[in-house]
Amino acid sequence: MEMGMREPFLRRRTMNTASQLAVVGADVSPIESLDYEIVENDLYKQDWRSRKKVQIFQYVVLKWTFALLIGLATGLVGFFSNLAVENIAGFKLLLTNYLMLKERHREAFLAYAGCNLILAAAAAALCAYIAPAAAGSGIPEVKAYLNGIDAHSILAPSTLFVKIFGSICGVSAGFVLGKEGPMVHTGACIANFLGQGGSRKYHLTWTWLRFFKNDRDRRDLITCGAAAGVATAFRAPVGGVLFALEEAASWWRSALLWRTFFTTAVVAVTLRAFGEYCRSGKCGLFGGGGLIMFDLSSTATSYSTPDLIAVVFVGAIGGIFGSLYNFLVDKVLCTYSIINEKGAPFKILLTVTISLLTSCCSYGLPWLAKCTPCPLGLHEHCPTVGRSGNFKNFQCPQGHYNDLASLFLNTSGDAIRILFSSGTDNEFYISSLFVFFTAIYFLGIVTYGIAVPSGLFIPVILAGASYGRLVGSLLGTICGLDKGLFALLGAASFLGGTMRMTVSVCVILLELTNDLPMLPLVMLVLLISKTVADGFNRGVYDQIIIMKGLPYMEAHAEPYMTNLVAGNVVSGPLITFSSVERVANIMHALKVTGHNGFPVVDEPPFSDAPELCGLVLRSHLLVLLKGKTFTKDRVLTGPAEVYQRFGAFDFAKAGSGKELKFEDLAIDEEEMEMYVDLHPVMNRSPYTVIETMSLAKAAVLFRELGLRHLCVVPKTPGRPPIIGILTRHDFMPEHILGLFPQLKHQN
Amino acid sequence: MEMGMREPFLRRRTMNTASQLAVVGADVSPIESLDYEIVENDLYKQDWRSRKKVQIFQYVVLKWTFALLIGLATGLVGFFSNLAVENIAGFKLLLTNYLMLKERHREAFLAYAGCNLILAAAAAALCAYIAPAAAGSGIPEVKAYLNGIDAHSILAPSTLFVKIFGSICGVSAGFVLGKEGPMVHTGACIANFLGQGGSRKYHLTWTWLRFFKNDRDRRDLITCGAAAGVATAFRAPVGGVLFALEEAASWWRSALLWRTFFTTAVVAVTLRAFGEYCRSGKCGLFGGGGLIMFDLSSTATSYSTPDLIAVVFVGAIGGIFGSLYNFLVDKVLCTYSIINEKGAPFKILLTVTISLLTSCCSYGLPWLAKCTPCPLGLHEHCPTVGRSGNFKNFQCPQGHYNDLASLFLNTSGDAIRILFSSGTDNEFYISSLFVFFTAIYFLGIVTYGIAVPSGLFIPVILAGASYGRLVGSLLGTICGLDKGLFALLGAASFLGGTMRMTVSVCVILLELTNDLPMLPLVMLVLLISKTVADGFNRGVYDQIIIMKGLPYMEAHAEPYMTNLVAGNVVSGPLITFSSVERVANIMHALKVTGHNGFPVVDEPPFSDAPELCGLVLRSHLLVLLKGKTFTKDRVLTGPAEVYQRFGAFDFAKAGSGKELKFEDLAIDEEEMEMYVDLHPVMNRSPYTVIETMSLAKAAVLFRELGLRHLCVVPKTPGRPPIIGILTRHDFMPEHILGLFPQLKHQN
Repeated sequence: MEMGMREPFLRRRTMNTASQLAVVGADVSPIESLDYEIVENDLYKQDWRSRKKVQIFQYVVLKWTFALLIGLATGLVGFFSNLAVENIAGFKLLLTNYLMLKERHREAFLAYAGCNLILAAAAAALCAYIAPAAAGSGIPEVKAYLNGIDAHSILAPSTLFVKIFGSICGVSAGFVLGKEGPMVHTGACIANFLGQGGSRKYHLTWTWLRFFKNDRDRRDLITCGAAAGVATAFRAPVGGVLFALEEAASWWRSALLWRTFFTTAVVAVTLRAFGEYCRSGKCGLFGGGGLIMFDLSSTATSYSTPDLIAVVFVGAIGGIFGSLYNFLVDKVLCTYSIINEKGAPFKILLTVTISLLTSCCSYGLPWLAKCTPCPLGLHEHCPTVGRSGNFKNFQCPQGHYNDLASLFLNTSGDAIRILFSSGTDNEFYISSLFVFFTAIYFLGIVTYGIAVPSGLFIPVILAGASYGRLVGSLLGTICGLDKGLFALLGAASFLGGTMRMTVSVCVILLELTNDLPMLPLVMLVLLISKTVADGFNRGVYDQIIIMKGLPYMEAHAEPYMTNLVAGNVVSGPLITFSSVERVANIMHALKVTGHNGFPVVDEPPFSDAPELCGLVLRSHLLVLLKGKTFTKDRVLTGPAEVYQRFGAFDFAKAGSGKELKFEDLAIDEEEMEMYVDLHPVMNRSPYTVIETMSLAKAAVLFRELGLRHLCVVPKTPGRPPIIGILTRHDFMPEHILGLFPQLKHQN
Repeated sequence: MEMGMREPFLRRRTMNTASQLAVVGADVSPIESLDYEIVENDLYKQDWRSRKKVQIFQYVVLKWTFALLIGLATGLVGFFSNLAVENIAGFKLLLTNYLMLKERHREAFLAYAGCNLILAAAAAALCAYIAPAAAGSGIPEVKAYLNGIDAHSILAPSTLFVKIFGSICGVSAGFVLGKEGPMVHTGACIANFLGQGGSRKYHLTWTWLRFFKNDRDRRDLITCGAAAGVATAFRAPVGGVLFALEEAASWWRSALLWRTFFTTAVVAVTLRAFGEYCRSGKCGLFGGGGLIMFDLSSTATSYSTPDLIAVVFVGAIGGIFGSLYNFLVDKVLCTYSIINEKGAPFKILLTVTISLLTSCCSYGLPWLAKCTPCPLGLHEHCPTVGRSGNFKNFQCPQGHYNDLASLFLNTSGDAIRILFSSGTDNEFYISSLFVFFTAIYFLGIVTYGIAVPSGLFIPVILAGASYGRLVGSLLGTICGLDKGLFALLGAASFLGGTMRMTVSVCVILLELTNDLPMLPLVMLVLLISKTVADGFNRGVYDQIIIMKGLPYMEAHAEPYMTNLVAGNVVSGPLITFSSVERVANIMHALKVTGHNGFPVVDEPPFSDAPELCGLVLRSHLLVLLKGKTFTKDRVLTGPAEVYQRFGAFDFAKAGSGKELKFEDLAIDEEEMEMYVDLHPVMNRSPYTVIETMSLAKAAVLFRELGLRHLCVVPKTPGRPPIIGILTRHDFMPEHILGLFPQLKHQN
C-alpha cells in the first residue's frame, strides 16, 4: 500500500446496485430503511412549541401503558401457547404410550406419525399461504428491524397470527424445534401492532395514539416486545432484558432498560398468576407453571481441579460442535431456500418430509436401546403411567423401562428436564445418550429452515444437554460432578457456541435452573465455548442475517474503510430540488427514482449563492402534493398556509401498508406547471459530512445516530452545495468492495 | 413563543465562563475532557497501514490479559480488605463484648470509642494528606470519568492506596458506611494503572503497552474495573456487569459486555478460591467466603393479594424515604464541603466528631432496649459468645439478650445478615427496630461526605432492611410473608429510591440472597420505589455529580436546545492556524489560551480559497514543536520528514502527569520566526456541523460519538471556513441558560 491512498482511486459515479430485496421468513420481500432521525422541519418546530404539558403527560402515560400491555399480551400468548402444546402433544404421546403398552406397535407408530404429519402439514400450510414471513425463528428478522431494516410483512398482524398457531402446531408435531425464538417474534409483533397509531378502518383513531407514529417510538416498543418474548419463553425476566440488550437491540439507552425491565416484570407476574391457577389441575394436561422450569438446586457446591479441567473440556468441545452447527444450518438453509422459492406446495412437501423423518427417528431409534430394570425406591411410577416421566415402558416387559424412549417420546421440555435432573447418574446408558445426541443434533439442523415457525434455543439446549450428560457419563468417576450439572454445562457450551451470547444466556440458564452456586462454572463454559467458536465463524443469527441478504449495519467500521473517504462511495445520479420547485419536476423525480430523500438547494433569488437548505423525504412530498398547496409563481409561500392545511401528524409515519403511494396522487396538467414551496416540510438540519471525511468515521456517525440519509457536502467552495447522499446500502461491504476490489486482498 | 425562534437572538460571542474546576473526592481539582475520537492524521494512517497481523494479535492478547489482571487484582484487594476489616473490627467488638460481659461498662465504652476514634483519625489523615480524591464513594467520579471527564488525581496510584487502606480503617471504625462504593473506585484505579502504557521511571516500557495509550482503550479498561469492583464487593459477577452497564458507563457496545463479563467471572473464581481457603479457619476472625453473602432461600414461594398490597406499600414509602435521603445527603455534602475546603486539620476534626457521634449512638442506644430471654431450641449460643451472632448479651443478665445491641455492635454485614434472616419473626421488638432504623438513616446521611472513603450501598441497605423489617413487624399477622423477606424488600425499596438503578440492583440482590422465587416481588418494589422517588429528585450519584460541578453530558438533549442552533452557543474568540504556520504564532496561542484543539485552515497558495483543513490538538502541537521540524520558508514539508522523526506513538496520549507541558519547550528567537507544516499531525476528518444545525441534534452527535471538539462551519460560502468549536462546556445548561435566560422560563 502506498501513502495517499485516497487520491489514486478514480471517482466512480456508479449506481449502487446493492439488492433492495431480502429473504424474510421463507419468502423474498422488498426492504426499506427505518428513519430514526427527528425531522426538524418548520411543522415539527411549530408543533413542538405548541405542545402542552398535557400532551407530554399523555405520551408518558401511553408509553408505560403500552409497556404494560405488551407484557400482559405476550405473557398471555405464551401461556396459551404452552397450554395448547402440552395438551395437543400430551394427547398424542398418551395415545402412543397406551398403544405401546398394549403391544400394538404398528398402530402406535401410525398414530404417532399420523398426528405429527397432520400437525406439520397444518403448520406449513398456515405459514406458506397466510404469512411466509412467520417461518423460522424470527430473531434475525427482529434483530434486523431493530437495526433499522423494515420489510413489509415482518411484523404484520397476519405474521403474528401464524407465528402463534404455526408454532403451536409445529412444536406439537414433535419437530426438533422450539417455541422460544417464535415467542420473541410474537412479542415484537404484538408491540408493533400497538405502535400502529390506531386504525381508521376499525375507528380506533384516538388522538393519543398519534404520538407513536414514528420509527423511534416503535423501535422502543419492539425492543420491549423482544424482551417480553424471551421473558415469556424461559420465564426469565432478567434474562429477557439482557437478551434484548445483548442480542436484539442495536441502540440502547438507560431509560429503555428501565421500561424493558417493567415489561418483563409484568410478564413474570402474569405467568405466575396463571401458573398458580393451573397448578390446581384446571388446565388439562398442562401442569405446574412455576417461574423455574428445571429446578436443579444442585447439592454439590464445591469442585476440585479435575472437575475444572472437565468443565474446560466440555466448553471447548461444545464450542466446536456449536460452530459446526452454525456452519451446517447455513448450508441447509441455502438448500432449503431454493426449494422454498418454488412455491407453497413445495414448502409443505419439504415440511412433511422432515416430519416423517423425525417421526421415524423418534419412534425407530428407541428400539435400539436395551431394556433396563426399574430402579428401586422411586417416588414416581416405573414404568411411567401418565404423559411425561423418566421411565417410558415402550417395547419393554413390565418392570423395565427404555431410556431412549423416555428421551424421544416426550416433549422437548420434559426431555431437557430429564437430562438436567440430578441424582439420576445411572439412569441412562452411554450408548442411548450417544444415539439421542446424534439424532437431535442432526434433526435440529435439518429442521431449521422449513416453512414453520421454529426456534433454535430448544434444539441447541437439547443437543447440548445430551452432549454434556454423555461427556459426564464417559468421564464416569474421574469427575465428581453430578451428571445433571454436566447436562447444564453442556447446554451452556452449545448455546455459547451457536448464539455467542454470554451474559444473557448465563442469566437465562440461571433463572431456568435456580442454580446460583454454579454460576462461575456456567460463566467459564460460556466464555470458553464462545471463544473457541468465534475462531471458526459468526453467531448463528448473524449468519442467517447475512444469508438472507438483510443489510445489517455493524457497530464498528470495517478496517478498509479507513482508506476511503465519504466521497469515494457516493453513488449517483443525485437528484436535488430547488427550495421552490415546479410540481412537474417533483412528480418526475418521484416517478423515475425510488429514492426516499431528496436534498433541497436554495438558489438565487432565495439566497445569494446556491446553498444546501435541507432534506425532504419522499413520504412528506407525497403528503404535500396531495394537499396541493401550489402557487402560480415561483415565490415563497411561507409556513402559514401549510400550518393551516396540515397538522404535524399528517406527516407522521403511517402504520405499515397505510402510507400514501405515488399512484394515489392526482395532479392535473395545469397544476403540473405550478410551484410548491418545500421550506416548511424539509428537514432543516440534516446531518452532513465533508467529502474528505474518512469513510470509517462517516460510518460510525451513520450507525451511532441511526440515520437513513447522510448528506455529503463539498470541501471547496464554488461547487454544487451537495455531492451526494449516503444510505445504508452505501456502507455495505458488497458495495464498497465492488467499487474497490483491490481492498479485498488487503484484509 | 413566536415562530422563527432562531432569528431573534443576537449572536453573542461571549467567552464560555463555565468552570474548569470541580470537586473530586474532597478537594477542588482542575478537570479536562477526554478524547475518544480517533485522530485520523497522516501519521495515524501511515502507522495503521504498516501495522502487521502480529501487532493486532499483541493488542488482542494484551486486552484480554488486562481483563484477567483487573479481575484478579480487584478480587485480591477485595479479599484482603474484607479480611482486614473482619479482623480489626472483630478484635474491637470482641474486646468490647468481653468487657461488657464482665460488667466493666465504662471501660467497654472507652475501648470501643477509642478504637473507633484512632481508626477514624487514621483514615481521615490518609485521605486528607495523601489523596483527597479518595474521599467519598468514588462512584460519581468513576461515572464522570466514563462520561469523558478527567481530573488529575481521580484514578492515580496514590488514590488507589488511600482508597484501600482508608476504606479498611473507615469500615473498621464502625462508621455507617460501606466498602462497596470504594471497591468500584478501587477497581477503576487498578484498571487505570494498567492502562498507563508502562513507566519509563521503572523501566516498564514494553512496546505492547503502547497500544493502550489512548482514552478509548482506557475507558474500556476502566469500565471493566468498575464492574470488577461491584462483582468483588457483592460477590455478584452478573450484577457487576449490569452495574457497569446501567450506572457507570456512558458508552457501551456488545464486545465490551463480553470482556466485562470475563473480568467479573475471574473475580468470582478468585473470591471463591480464597473463600475455600479461609473456610478452614486460617484467616483469623474472617469466616466463610462463599459466593452468597446472605442465604435467604425463603421457603414461602407463594403470596396472596394482601401480601402484594403490603409490598406495594413498602415500595412506595421506601421511594419517599430514598428521595429524602438524597435530598439530605446533598444538603449535608454542601455543608461539609465548606468545612473540608478549610484544610486537612478541619477534615480530620470533622471525621473525629462524626466518629464520636457514631460511637455514642451505637453504644448508648442499646441501653434503651429491654432484655429478652433467650429463645429455646437454638442452634447457636445465646447469648452470643464469639464475635458475631444474633444474641448480644450487652448489659443483660445471663440467659437474656439485647436485640438492639445485636444490631449496633456488629459489623454492618452481620447486621444485614441478622435482619435478612428468616424464621426469626419474634427476635426483635418493634421499638428496637424503630430506634435502629432512625439512627442508621441519619448516621448514614451525616457520615457521607467526611474525608474518608465511604460507600452508600451498605448504609442504604442497612436502613432499608431495618425499615422493611419494621413494616413487616407492624403489619404483624395481616401479611403472611416472612420478616426476613420484608427486610429484603425494604432494602430493595431504599436502593431503588436512592440509586435509581433497577436491573442491576435486582440482580445484585438476587446474587446476594440466592432467592430467585422472590424475583417478581423485588422487581415490583424496585419499580414502585424508583417511580415514586423520580417524582421528587434525581438519583444520588447524579446529584453528587451536579453538586461537585462535573460537566456530565446527558444522553438526551434538553428540550430548549431544539429552539437554538449550533451557531448560537459558539463562544469565542476562535484561534485558527494556517496549515503552514509561523512557530511564534503557535507559541503565542499555546501560551495565552488553554484551548486543547485548534482548527487549521488551508490558505492560498496551498489552496484556491481558505478552507477548513483539519483540527490539531494542543498535545500534538507540543510534541511537534519539541521535535523542531521547522523550515525557514513557508513551504509544505510533506509527511516524510515527520515520519522519520516521529512514530505514531510519540503522539499517543501519555499516562496521567506525564504529558509534555508548555514549559518544557525551549524555542529560541531564530526558530520562532521559522515555519512548521501542520498537515502531518492534524486530524483530517474532524466532525463538523453547519451553523444552522439544531443545537439538540448537535448535542446528540457530540454525545453519541463521544467527541471533545465539534467544528461549526458556515452555511453560506464566502465567509471564514470555520465559525467556532463546540466543546463539552458549550452544551452545559448553565452556559446555554446563561446566554439565553429567556429559555429558563419556558420549561
